[in-house]
Amino acid sequence: MATKALPVSPLAPKGGFPDLPPVPGAEFAAVGAGVAYAGRPDVMLARLAPGTTIAGVFTRSATRSASVLDCQAKLGGPSGGRAAIVVNSGNANAFTGRAGVDAVNAIATAVAQATGAPPDRVFTASTGVIGAPLPHERITARAGALTAALSPMALPDAARAIMTTDTFPKGAGATLDAGAPVHIAGIAKGSGMIAPDMATMLAFVFTDATVAQPVLQAMLSEVTGQSFNCITVDSDTSTSDTLLLAATGQSTAPPITDRDSAGGRAFEAALKTVMLDLAHQVVRDGEGARKFIEVQVEGAASDADARRVAFAIANSPLVKTAVAGEDPNWGRVVMAVGKSGAGAADRDRLSIRFGDVQVAEGGQVSPAYREADAAAHMKGQEILIRVGMGLGAGRATVWTCDLTHGYVSINADYRS
Amino acid sequence: MATKALPVSPLAPKGGFPDLPPVPGAEFAAVGAGVAYAGRPDVMLARLAPGTTIAGVFTRSATRSASVLDCQAKLGGPSGGRAAIVVNSGNANAFTGRAGVDAVNAIATAVAQATGAPPDRVFTASTGVIGAPLPHERITARAGALTAALSPMALPDAARAIMTTDTFPKGAGATLDAGAPVHIAGIAKGSGMIAPDMATMLAFVFTDATVAQPVLQAMLSEVTGQSFNCITVDSDTSTSDTLLLAATGQSTAPPITDRDSAGGRAFEAALKTVMLDLAHQVVRDGEGARKFIEVQVEGAASDADARRVAFAIANSPLVKTAVAGEDPNWGRVVMAVGKSGAGAADRDRLSIRFGDVQVAEGGQVSPAYREADAAAHMKGQEILIRVGMGLGAGRATVWTCDLTHGYVSINADYRS
Repeated sequence: MATKALPVSPLAPKGGFPDLPPVPGAEFAAVGAGVAYAGRPDVMLARLAPGTTIAGVFTRSATRSASVLDCQAKLGGPSGGRAAIVVNSGNANAFTGRAGVDAVNAIATAVAQATGAPPDRVFTASTGVIGAPLPHERITARAGALTAALSPMALPDAARAIMTTDTFPKGAGATLDAGAPVHIAGIAKGSGMIAPDMATMLAFVFTDATVAQPVLQAMLSEVTGQSFNCITVDSDTSTSDTLLLAATGQSTAPPITDRDSAGGRAFEAALKTVMLDLAHQVVRDGEGARKFIEVQVEGAASDADARRVAFAIANSPLVKTAVAGEDPNWGRVVMAVGKSGAGAADRDRLSIRFGDVQVAEGGQVSPAYREADAAAHMKGQEILIRVGMGLGAGRATVWTCDLTHGYVSINADYRS
Repeated sequence: MATKALPVSPLAPKGGFPDLPPVPGAEFAAVGAGVAYAGRPDVMLARLAPGTTIAGVFTRSATRSASVLDCQAKLGGPSGGRAAIVVNSGNANAFTGRAGVDAVNAIATAVAQATGAPPDRVFTASTGVIGAPLPHERITARAGALTAALSPMALPDAARAIMTTDTFPKGAGATLDAGAPVHIAGIAKGSGMIAPDMATMLAFVFTDATVAQPVLQAMLSEVTGQSFNCITVDSDTSTSDTLLLAATGQSTAPPITDRDSAGGRAFEAALKTVMLDLAHQVVRDGEGARKFIEVQVEGAASDADARRVAFAIANSPLVKTAVAGEDPNWGRVVMAVGKSGAGAADRDRLSIRFGDVQVAEGGQVSPAYREADAAAHMKGQEILIRVGMGLGAGRATVWTCDLTHGYVSINADYRS
């Protein structure tokens, strides 16, 4: 299978791949194993120092892949020795039956031997075509080469190795002063929320903070709810979504044993910055995306109601095509609010703004509304849709992209 | 506003608009009132004999239109005198505040005076742009002309008057022998499920059967669940969806007082034929549709689970673009089953067929599967996706269309 040469998203970060801080205790490598692509790196390895704690969040799909099930089982295990994360692109190893489980075990065993991590501390992820057997021997054959290539500086290479239909590699980092420096660096891939063939969402975040596993897991779950779980491209859910956070404990900053301590709060805020940046990059690389859309809902009866309304807007094909057409079609926003359920909305208290332009209020169009003002906002690359429910203090913000001919072309015109 | 000249859907019924049986006690008319369109009929009237019973089903949107709220209030009222249904296209009278309520009352009053029906027996519906005040005086000015034009033969004209982005008028009918003949004739409009601007779903069905109102309502609710509530074009929900069923009681066949009587069952079966035909026509006129898709799910733990899985497939942009691309991309069906929820599916019992081609079984690709066989099925205009859950006796069938460049063009490229 050849790599599709898609044009780089016009919403890609202008500065290219960011400078990420090295994370003491974490080393990376990427090699070409020819899993499905030829002539490019398609397997990445992360090796993590003894004592590293690992937290994870995964797809809730009923058809999740063998790797996801294996990671979930291993997360509850011991955290003493080294750990490793090995990821391939080109094949999702999903819906592959018993052979899929055997492939995961073979890869974990080979990587354990090469890296010195125990097999139950080797985490795997795969992204690519569903239903095709994973040629795992191509990966196990490169376990030695991967280990030999390990370097603290190779995280950008790892970001490129896990790309499928992504048009740019995605990375984000932060350094905070917690008495001593603490570093966070993460990578992600995904282009669609999330095409199962070629665009599963994966993210791997590394830090040298010292964090007990239950605390790390609680932080990751909380921040995921405020970042990756607030984005949508096409409402579709992958079989393979995997997000792992590894804390090597190599920083000399005090250990974090409590989320609610000053140190815990500062670390969680920095983690959110990194994860939100990565999540936004996934939306910016949404299939066919030409506009980045932020949907803010406030004044709902609860945060949960606000979130439901926000996703009803962000997932609406009619809203997303209107944005693609630079059309301030606020009637479609009214429709999307309405379909989120009768309990969540009172038509006659609803207000809508595009950017700073008041469009509708009190259940009808605003007296001063001039369509030219809203149309000017829609010409931009960053679109802001703000809805006031007029009912309470509930609020939510989610992000998506427009629905363009490019989306249809990527998913219909080519045979993968 | 000019009428957009969209090409007629390639999925339109080959024979054109069907011959519908006259329904004794029901008369129809259509005129041009210039509500929004020029040079075409845009208002329809149905006048119904004294004693007609009326049942209705409506959108559950939280932002439903003034007409919908008015119809819901009137359905519980008395059923003695004449009744009338008046419908305009070009303006949805939704999100129009107090002015919208006043418009409904003005139209009902004028039509009541012209037709002799009491105002609380005049039902209204409106379809078109959201948020613009309805120029109701253009409709009330034509109440006399509409009444003068009434004819038992004018139902096809009414079907054309309620079109917006529809590319063909939609009608279906049946005649059953219930001792004496009983006639059913219905019309619908809709093109998208359902664009709020220009493609709200409306359907009006008429019969000369004699049916008590509570029985009629129970039948309509049941059959709606098996027809209009089993279709989706883009998962969006209108502010204005309205389905009315009027029974004039002019047939000499025995009255239907019980759904479970032989007469009740025969009538309900004929009603289902008519409503399913209309529902399929709405899908066949889905915006940009080039393929009609039937999704059959069987072997689920319950009918409700089967329905959730079927709609997860039918609403998936990735499944719908794959069909547009004639791609037997069964991995996307696996994904869609997965996202419908972990409780509904067991990955390792799942089987998938495209038409008669067995694609996957027992959680992996079928040993005998040849992609060329499935690809041949995808070349057709009528696509059948069959999923076996392997868990129980629950089943559901739903219908949708593919997601094409035409959908994006209709909703993004033109300013409505």
